[in-house]
Order: sequence, then C-alpha cells, then structure tokens
Amino acid sequence: MIKAGIFGATGYTGYELVKILQRHPQVEIAFATSQSFAGQTLAAVYPQAPQLPLILGEEAPLDQVDVVFLCLPHAAAAETAVLALNHQVTVIDLSADFRLKDADTYAAWYDKAHPAPHLLADAVYGLTEFARDQLPGAKLVATPGCYPTSILLPLRPLLTAPLPITGPIIADSKSGTSGAGRTPKAGTHFIHVHNNFAPYKIGRSHRHLPEIEQGMHWFRADAPALIFSPHLLPVDRGILSTIYVNFSEAVGLDVVRPYFTQMYANEPFIHLLPDGELASLAHVTHSNKCAIGLTLAGNTLVVTSAIDNLVKGAAGQAVQNMNVVFGIEETAGLI
Amino acid sequence: MIKAGIFGATGYTGYELVKILQRHPQVEIAFATSQSFAGQTLAAVYPQAPQLPLILGEEAPLDQVDVVFLCLPHAAAAETAVLALNHQVTVIDLSADFRLKDADTYAAWYDKAHPAPHLLADAVYGLTEFARDQLPGAKLVATPGCYPTSILLPLRPLLTAPLPITGPIIADSKSGTSGAGRTPKAGTHFIHVHNNFAPYKIGRSHRHLPEIEQGMHWFRADAPALIFSPHLLPVDRGILSTIYVNFSEAVGLDVVRPYFTQMYANEPFIHLLPDGELASLAHVTHSNKCAIGLTLAGNTLVVTSAIDNLVKGAAGQAVQNMNVVFGIEETAGLI
Amino acid sequence: MIKAGIFGATGYTGYELVKILQRHPQVEIAFATSQSFAGQTLAAVYPQAPQLPLILGEEAPLDQVDVVFLCLPHAAAAETAVLALNHQVTVIDLSADFRLKDADTYAAWYDKAHPAPHLLADAVYGLTEFARDQLPGAKLVATPGCYPTSILLPLRPLLTAPLPITGPIIADSKSGTSGAGRTPKAGTHFIHVHNNFAPYKIGRSHRHLPEIEQGMHWFRADAPALIFSPHLLPVDRGILSTIYVNFSEAVGLDVVRPYFTQMYANEPFIHLLPDGELASLAHVTHSNKCAIGLTLAGNTLVVTSAIDNLVKGAAGQAVQNMNVVFGIEETAGLI
Amino acid sequence: MIKAGIFGATGYTGYELVKILQRHPQVEIAFATSQSFAGQTLAAVYPQAPQLPLILGEEAPLDQVDVVFLCLPHAAAAETAVLALNHQVTVIDLSADFRLKDADTYAAWYDKAHPAPHLLADAVYGLTEFARDQLPGAKLVATPGCYPTSILLPLRPLLTAPLPITGPIIADSKSGTSGAGRTPKAGTHFIHVHNNFAPYKIGRSHRHLPEIEQGMHWFRADAPALIFSPHLLPVDRGILSTIYVNFSEAVGLDVVRPYFTQMYANEPFIHLLPDGELASLAHVTHSNKCAIGLTLAGNTLVVTSAIDNLVKGAAGQAVQNMNVVFGIEETAGLI
Repeated sequence: MIKAGIFGATGYTGYELVKILQRHPQVEIAFATSQSFAGQTLAAVYPQAPQLPLILGEEAPLDQVDVVFLCLPHAAAAETAVLALNHQVTVIDLSADFRLKDADTYAAWYDKAHPAPHLLADAVYGLTEFARDQLPGAKLVATPGCYPTSILLPLRPLLTAPLPITGPIIADSKSGTSGAGRTPKAGTHFIHVHNNFAPYKIGRSHRHLPEIEQGMHWFRADAPALIFSPHLLPVDRGILSTIYVNFSEAVGLDVVRPYFTQMYANEPFIHLLPDGELASLAHVTHSNKCAIGLTLAGNTLVVTSAIDNLVKGAAGQAVQNMNVVFGIEETAGLI
Repeated sequence: MIKAGIFGATGYTGYELVKILQRHPQVEIAFATSQSFAGQTLAAVYPQAPQLPLILGEEAPLDQVDVVFLCLPHAAAAETAVLALNHQVTVIDLSADFRLKDADTYAAWYDKAHPAPHLLADAVYGLTEFARDQLPGAKLVATPGCYPTSILLPLRPLLTAPLPITGPIIADSKSGTSGAGRTPKAGTHFIHVHNNFAPYKIGRSHRHLPEIEQGMHWFRADAPALIFSPHLLPVDRGILSTIYVNFSEAVGLDVVRPYFTQMYANEPFIHLLPDGELASLAHVTHSNKCAIGLTLAGNTLVVTSAIDNLVKGAAGQAVQNMNVVFGIEETAGLI
Repeated sequence: MIKAGIFGATGYTGYELVKILQRHPQVEIAFATSQSFAGQTLAAVYPQAPQLPLILGEEAPLDQVDVVFLCLPHAAAAETAVLALNHQVTVIDLSADFRLKDADTYAAWYDKAHPAPHLLADAVYGLTEFARDQLPGAKLVATPGCYPTSILLPLRPLLTAPLPITGPIIADSKSGTSGAGRTPKAGTHFIHVHNNFAPYKIGRSHRHLPEIEQGMHWFRADAPALIFSPHLLPVDRGILSTIYVNFSEAVGLDVVRPYFTQMYANEPFIHLLPDGELASLAHVTHSNKCAIGLTLAGNTLVVTSAIDNLVKGAAGQAVQNMNVVFGIEETAGLI
Repeated sequence: MIKAGIFGATGYTGYELVKILQRHPQVEIAFATSQSFAGQTLAAVYPQAPQLPLILGEEAPLDQVDVVFLCLPHAAAAETAVLALNHQVTVIDLSADFRLKDADTYAAWYDKAHPAPHLLADAVYGLTEFARDQLPGAKLVATPGCYPTSILLPLRPLLTAPLPITGPIIADSKSGTSGAGRTPKAGTHFIHVHNNFAPYKIGRSHRHLPEIEQGMHWFRADAPALIFSPHLLPVDRGILSTIYVNFSEAVGLDVVRPYFTQMYANEPFIHLLPDGELASLAHVTHSNKCAIGLTLAGNTLVVTSAIDNLVKGAAGQAVQNMNVVFGIEETAGLI
C-alpha cells in the first residue's frame, strides 16, 4: 500500500482527492492537513466526508508517507514541496508552483519570486498522456491547471502534426464555479452566479495563459499565440473549451482525425467523439475523462473539449500521475 | 392608441410581447391568438398572465387593428403576413420569414420554398439602430434573430470603419434555454439542461449564420466569413456572444473605441462598457439593452456582447421597431 | 411629488426599492445611502442600476425629504428612525426594529436592548391588507418580515373566522437565497446552495417566530402555537409557505373559502386561487402579489401561500404602505 | 457471480442501476432492455454510459439470469414479474406493482385491476432495514417508493415506540426533478422548473400516500392518518421530507433519541445526525444513505429526513435488497 499525505484537504480539490484515494485499492491516506480546521475531521466541512482527522501542516509526519499531494495556495505549496523532498517523499503538487519552467514568468504572473526555482527543471509537467515517459520514479510532479488540461490535450495532436496552422489560436472556455474555490466571495455568491453567465480575465490576462502557451511550444516550437477567454458557468463543475484553429489552406476532417486517433485511440481517459458529436459537460462530470469533438467549418477547425475541472482538471489527473510514478495500473482508483 | 394584434401569444416570445405591450402607454392589445389554447385565456398558460382571451388565428379581426405581431413558426408567419398586408395592417414579424433577402437562401436553410418571395425586397430588416431610417411608415418589418442581434450590433461599428480586419470572424455564443421555445423536448428537459453546458450546430450549420453574414455584408461588402458556435446555458434567458476579430496589423483600443462611441454613444439601448468591463447576462436580463465590452489581446479584438434573447433579441426589439414605424417615442413601453 | 430617501440602498432590498420607486409616478428619490459604497453610484454595485449617487448615512439631508425607507441592520434602523422622526419625516422601516410590540421580546430574540422602545406603541405593523385603517398619516411603519407576510396573510381569514382550529399550526416555508442578503457567506456560496436544499432554524428558533405569533394573536386571542420551519431554496427569489391547520371537527372547503373571499376578493395584491390550484413561486416572482391556494385533507386544511420575498415580502409592501400613508393610489408603482 | 437482467434500462432509475451494478463485485449484467432504444446501446442515451446493448423486453433471455430488476411502468412490471418467476428467476421490482398488499387499494390508486394479485401476499416490501429478516431467499421483492422510503425510515422508530403520538402526522416532502422521469413534459421543461418551486398532489391525493400509510400501520396498528405534501425542487436529485409528529404530552429528545439509536445506530445506510444538525440534500446525494435529524419544538417533533431518490429511493435500495436476498455483503456495490 502506498501511504499518502494530503496537504490542504478541505478545499474542493482536496476533498475530491480524498474521495478518489478512499476508493483507490493501493493507497492509504496517512494524514490530511488543514490550517483552518485542524483538530476537527473532514466531516465537519463536508457532510458526506469521512471522519478523517485534520492536522496542522507543520505537524504532518512526513517520515510516514511515500507521497504527498499539495492542495495548497501557490508559494505555500513550493515551501512544503521542499520539506517533503528533503524527506525523500514524492510530491504531487496541485498548485501552480511547478507548472511554469521559467522562474521569471512565474514571478511576472504570480506576483512573487519563486520560492524554489532550483526545482523547476526537474519537475515533471504532469499532463499524463503527454508526460507518461517522464513520470515513472519522478520525485516532483506538477499537476496541470484545469483550463490548460482542457486545451492542451486536444491541441497536442494538432500542433505535433504537420498541419498548416495559422494565426492566433482561440480558446473560449467556460468553467463551473467550483474552479473558484471554497472561500465565499462576491463573485461566487449564489445570487451573483445563478441566472448569470460572465466572462473574466479574457484575452491574454489569465494566469493559465503562459502555462498553456508553454505547452503549445513544447508541441510545436513556432506555435501561434493563444487568445484565451474564460467564463463562469452557473454549474458546480465541468469545463468546456471551444477551440478555434485556423488552417492557411483547406484541410479535411479525414486528414485531421487520424492524428487524434493515432495519439489517443487507446487512451483510457480520452473520449474521442465521432463526427457530428460535440463535447459537453454531460460527457465528463464526475469522471477523469476528456471528451473531444471535431468540427470543420471552412478552413477553421472547431474543437470542443470537456473535462471535469475537479477530476481530470485536478485531483483525478494528480492520482493518474501518482499511479504512473509508482508503476501501478494507471486507471486505479479512477474508474 | 395603436391597436395591436398578436399571433401566437402563448410562446415565450408572445408572452414577453404581451407583458411589454400591457405597459406601453400608446398601445392597446386588440386580440391574441393561439391554435392550442383558443377559447381559454393567457392565464391558463402562464400563472401571472392577464385574462387575455385567446382566439384561433383564422378568426382574428384584422380589420380592427393597426399592427400585428407575428410570433408564429416560419412559413406560417409569411402566410399570415400576406393576409394582414391585404388588410393594410402593418406587420411586425418575429419569425425568420422576412429576414433573408434571398429566397433561395431561405429555401436552402429553412427546407421549404418561401411562401411570399415578392415581399422580401420591401421588408425592412429591423435591427433598429441600423434600420432607423427605413422604418418610419414601413408596412413589413422583420425582427432580427436573437443571436444575430447580439452579434451584428457590435460588428456594425467595426465593419463600417476602415479597420484592417482579416480572416474569419468568430462568434462564440451562449444562450439561455428560453431560446429553444416552450415545447418540451429531450434537449430542454430540466435534467438534461441543469448542470450541463453544451454546444450545438457549431461552425457554419445554424440557421442564423446566413442572416448574420447578410448583415455583415451590408456593413462591409468584403466582410470575412463567420464561424458561429451557439451553446446552451442552464439559465432562463440571456445571450452572451464572445466575438473574436483579428486585425492584420496592430490597432489600439484608442483607435477602435471611437467608432463605437460615435455610432452608439447616444443610443438608449446600447450600453457601451468602459475599458476593462466585460458584458455579462447580469447587464441585460429583463431589459431591451445590448451591453458591449471591448478587450484587445495582441492583434485580436475580443468583443463581449450581451442581450436578453426574449427582449432585445425578440419582443423588445419588435416593439422598438413598431415605435419607430408609427413615429412615437422609440423607448415607449421599453424602459 | 413625494421626496424619498433610502437608507441602505445597496442591499437586495434597497435595490429592489430603487427599482420600484424609479417607476413610481408620484415619488422622486432624493438621496440614497451606503456606508460601503458612499462616493460611488448604485451602478457600481448592480450592473443595471441607475447612476444614483450614494452618500454616507450621516450626511443624508433629512430636511429635504417627506419619507425615508430604512433598509438597515436592526438597531441601526431604530437609531436612524429617531433622527428622521425628529425631522418630521415619515419613516417606513424595513428592518425588524418596530415589528414586535414588546421590547423584552425584541431583546430576547435580537440580542440587544431596543434602542427606542418608546416608539413601539405607535409604530404601525404594515401588513397592508390588515393595517390599512391605521396607515393614513402614520409617522412610523414597520414593514413585516418576508416569512411573516407569507404566513399571516393566509392565516388572517382563518383565525378571525369562527373555525374550530386546534393546536399547533405548522408553517413549512421555503425561501430563495436573496433572503439571506448580499454579504457572501459559506451558507450562500454558489456551490453550497446549488443542487442543495436545506432546512435551518426550524421548530421555534427563527427570529420571525415571535413576529408571526404576535400577528396570530391579533387575529385570535387564543391562537394556537406555531411550528415554523424555514428552508433554503436554490433560486434567487420567492417564498412558498405550506401551512397546516387542523380542525377539531369536519369542516368543508365550502365553509372555509367564503372567509377568504369576503376578506380578499377585492384586494389588488391577493391572488386567491380556485379549488385545485396550488400556489407556486411562478405565480408571484417579480410581483407584489400573494397567491393563496386551499386544499382540504381530512380535517386538515393545507394552505399554499407564495410571495416574492423582495417585493411583497419587503420593498413592494413598503411602497404599498407608503402609498396608503400618503393617501395616493395603493397600487401606484406596483403594477 | 450473480447474473442480472435489467428491464427498462434507459430511464433514470435503470441507468442508476447500471452504474451501481457495474461496480458491484459480485454481479454481472447479462442483459438490459429498452422498448425505445432496442438495437442501440445505453451510450446512445447517456453520454457517459457503457456500450451496453439494449434488447427488446420480449427477447430477454430469462433462462440465463439469476435475478431481474424491473424498472418498468406499473402493470407492465407485474406482467414481466410473472414471466420471470415462471423461469425461477428472482424478481426485484422497482415499480409500484407489489408495494401495496391490497389489490383493491392498488386498483383505486393505479386505475387498473392488479395484473397478478395472487403474488401480493408473498412479495416482500423491501424497506431493507425493516424487511431484512424476510428478504433472504425471497423470490419477489417490491422496492419501496422514493417518498415512502424517506418518510417510513424515520417514522419506524417513532411508531414502534410507546410514544404518545396524536393527530395527523404531516410529511412535507420536496423532491428533485429526476423523480418525474425521463419523458419530456410541460411540468419538467427546464424553463418551468428552474427558478420555480411548486407543490403538487398535496394532502391525501398522491399515489404514495396509501403505501406510506400501509407501512405506518405495520409499525403501529392505530397509527394516525398522514397528510403528505410533495413539492418539486429545481435540482436533479434528492428528497428532503420534513415530518411533523405531535405528542399529546411533553416528551424530551432524551426520550425520543434512544429509540432511533437502538434501531439504527449500527445501520450502514442510516446517518443519524447529532442534536442541532438538520438533514439536507448535501448529506445524501449520490449515496445510498438516509440522513435523519431530530428537533423538538414544544410538543411537536420535527424530523428532517433526506435520501437520494434514485439511490436509496430506487436503484440503491433495490441492490441492497438483492444483496440480502442472495446472502452477500449488504453494502456490496453501494459504498
């Protein structure tokens, strides 16, 4: 049994992780931390949660675990990662701290110097389907952001193929409200969200933009720029990204689709939809799947891509990564 | 007092029209029709509706009204329009029948020959802010579709300006469920829509596409093609269109914004948002307004545009048109 | 024109009041206050609100108004009422401060001594249909709570009639989330409310209980006790109270209904539903109406009663009261 | 492995059953039927469903299964039950056909003569916690209705105890919309349900009333009458029943609670909430649990009881019953 510790178990991502690990046949939760609810159990926060005791992060017994999951605010995550790595504990980070390879970019977008820039080079960017070869035995894994997962998975076959892609790529993304976290704010007040639909930080201003473009450049060195428009949906969970990729000349779906099939046909968590079917939240909520639909309109490919932001976009992909790191069945705990 | 008849009063658009006309100081509802509820009153369909008697369409006293509003299925609307025009009654059509100028295009998208092609040339396309000069005294007005209204209003200042627009224009639109009508269907069942978000007929396959492109070409003869992606939102009402317009060279917001200001600053129903503010459903639901926000991202202008699909996207704009046709205060009944 | 000031204009009740007064033909808003947004306009808080300037409460020009509406926290309301009355300004209070006639009861339920107990005797409890005779010329009106309005209106004909009612009356009430106010809290976070339904403070523990029982005793000196169970609904607005009244012997609907008809048949804001029709939120949202349905089951009368908590349950009834106080048309601004 | 057949797999209950049986370690789905989708797979109906082939009911290979689950309309279920029993197949019925012991009562409430009255006496009413002793080896099990489950489970310890219960018992119940089935209807149209909350068939007119009273009389021969008021909630799933039980004299919670503890403390699917905590949908959705909270108000006990209507109220309890019938772990597949 793999012994796992969870830092920050009371956020939505932390609780989702607890639910997944509880049914994981090869993992045992050794501890769970919470700065606000230490001394209580997770059932004090979520009425269906188990009586899992919560301790302060600084009291976590790092010498008793094989792996820690960090569901912490950025910067705090990096500091905890350093401690855990010093104890030889594998770190699966769910924060943004180890996603960007460049410390200056991090500083520019996250408003503080990176707490552990020396770790960036070795951290594996855990978009599992892309990083599968780098994951076995990795000591530090950065779980991708929710929006980046929904956008990079479908862009990967396109950008790595010799397709005549031109101009900015546009990702119009819509996310459920759990993506905004558990802290009550004016913007997540029921009355504000219900019956509403609103864009935010559109264009090139959301923190996930540099992360997505970094991945796009891994796929294709001269990838075009991204225009990224997140919107807030009046639902609990799920992200749908509608992605527009322009070709400089006519390209048929019969040319495009095989790149997806070759790359993803055997992936357990990629659901390639047949021609004419579009991805929707109903395809993916409460699952670790990414559903992908392809539609051609003139010389523009419209890709619909859906994930559950708390599962494939966070806790599910984190466990998927852990499974590969430890060499166990990749789907364990996830289906 | 203008005497008005309403054909098809029990649909969502018809009922919205009743609500607006009831508070309109210069209009009196002379009759309302319903094929399914004739013999009952509108209160049998909507619990807050007035006791407005419903009659069969074929029994409507056309000689007693000045204007009729047609909230009928396409084709049926055109047939009723012919009858009404024969009685010298002004027709404000809310169906798709007189929106497209070309009968062949109509036939291709609406699966039947146009019932009255001889009327197409004289029908005024009632995007009010655009058509204001053609409306006074008009006998036949086509109220634009909901999606076209949300997209054409913000595209008008852009396409009529000498801006270096290139490539396809992309409109990623999201609509509340009332746009799908009052008839229960699998796709509008509560369980299907709630907690879901789904695209449909994306790319170049929705019937509103030729209508929007027709308007774009009025604004600019060589307008680029449109990629149009509608999505269904789990809310009652409201449309948000996120529109992407690429420039072939750098253009500042200081250049773009004045075109909007000059065209729309004095419009009572256009709400131009200041820099940094994005349009949302909360800006417009239950009003006849169109809120427009401008964001520049590299060489791409991202326009957010919001309307209430039942008001500015249907019944409200129909009344706005009627006001201009009859030479009364354009905002009467609407604020 | 009646000149009105609004204290606390940025809460949901305050904004609803602004919307009603804006369309009221005989009222002009002279000022609006907000401690948090003073210096800005109401449009900074609500995207569809007018550019109404907000000032600090202590800077309100009381000598320039005929009436003030107090949408303030309890205790703060009473203190402002004293100031306004000193300026001979009529006070329509929407807080709980002047609803209970007994200062000790107030202290017991609101955790502080009443700031102005000498005013309690003369304050009119503005359940308009009940208080209509006391309102003309009143200087201080307490607008009833939202739950009390939904429960007392239907109980009034029952308790004043010689019906054999026997102990306890049960009111199972369900309210939209706007009743919980504009301040973000864990209990009104979108994720908490959406997909959920939860009771709170049930039995005899909610602050509205003594207010409702006070009214019940006005109607019938020996009224039975009330069991009151509020629940939170995942909707914006509306209250439905399902009320159970037991008779000690068989009583027919033909006996019960006339008491309702005699009392309410001509009331503009009471919608008595015919036999077999039950009240629902759809009957009343965005209106000042109270819909009442009657169902007999054995010797138990089940009354369904619906109001919009922000209109008939707050701002609407406040304006209805003001209309009666000033001797103008009772429905002005409200239909 | 137990081989199971599912009749009526495409309804909400049928699909919930498929999801539970798929993860059940001792069950294998042998066939699934659908009259509307025969020839297709379940994935054609639900985007996350498996590629489970659907066949016509009349083609179901009854000789290849140990158990069948009937998710069929009433009457159709009884006819299929007869066939299955003739093949010595155990029948777990989820319809109403075998819940009522009295064929005349069935005929009065379900508008047709019972198709197989000779089976009623031996059918086990599968409120599992109550029927556990009768279930092992049973050939025909009637799964209780959703509302009855939510009401009978908490009434059982009360009615079997020597408590001085008087007068009608009132159950004010609120259900998510999945309870109304998968067929689109005006009453389950998104626009009708969203933002609304409505009672229906209240008092003594809902078909679940005789079923609940039958259970109440099993618990206590002279049980009082029930007043039952169902309401429709704008959520997918979940039932909350707020139940009012009057005592003829003062009884403390310290007297009441032990009856619940003795009966339910060790039940895996009953979640007895501590004093002061009330049941809510959040306690139970997507689980087979029934959460029960107790509140005393004067001489009235207010019981809050929550279940997931599709799980403990249908498919989950059906599987729980099957587990007991076949002598395997009662919680298998359910936690």
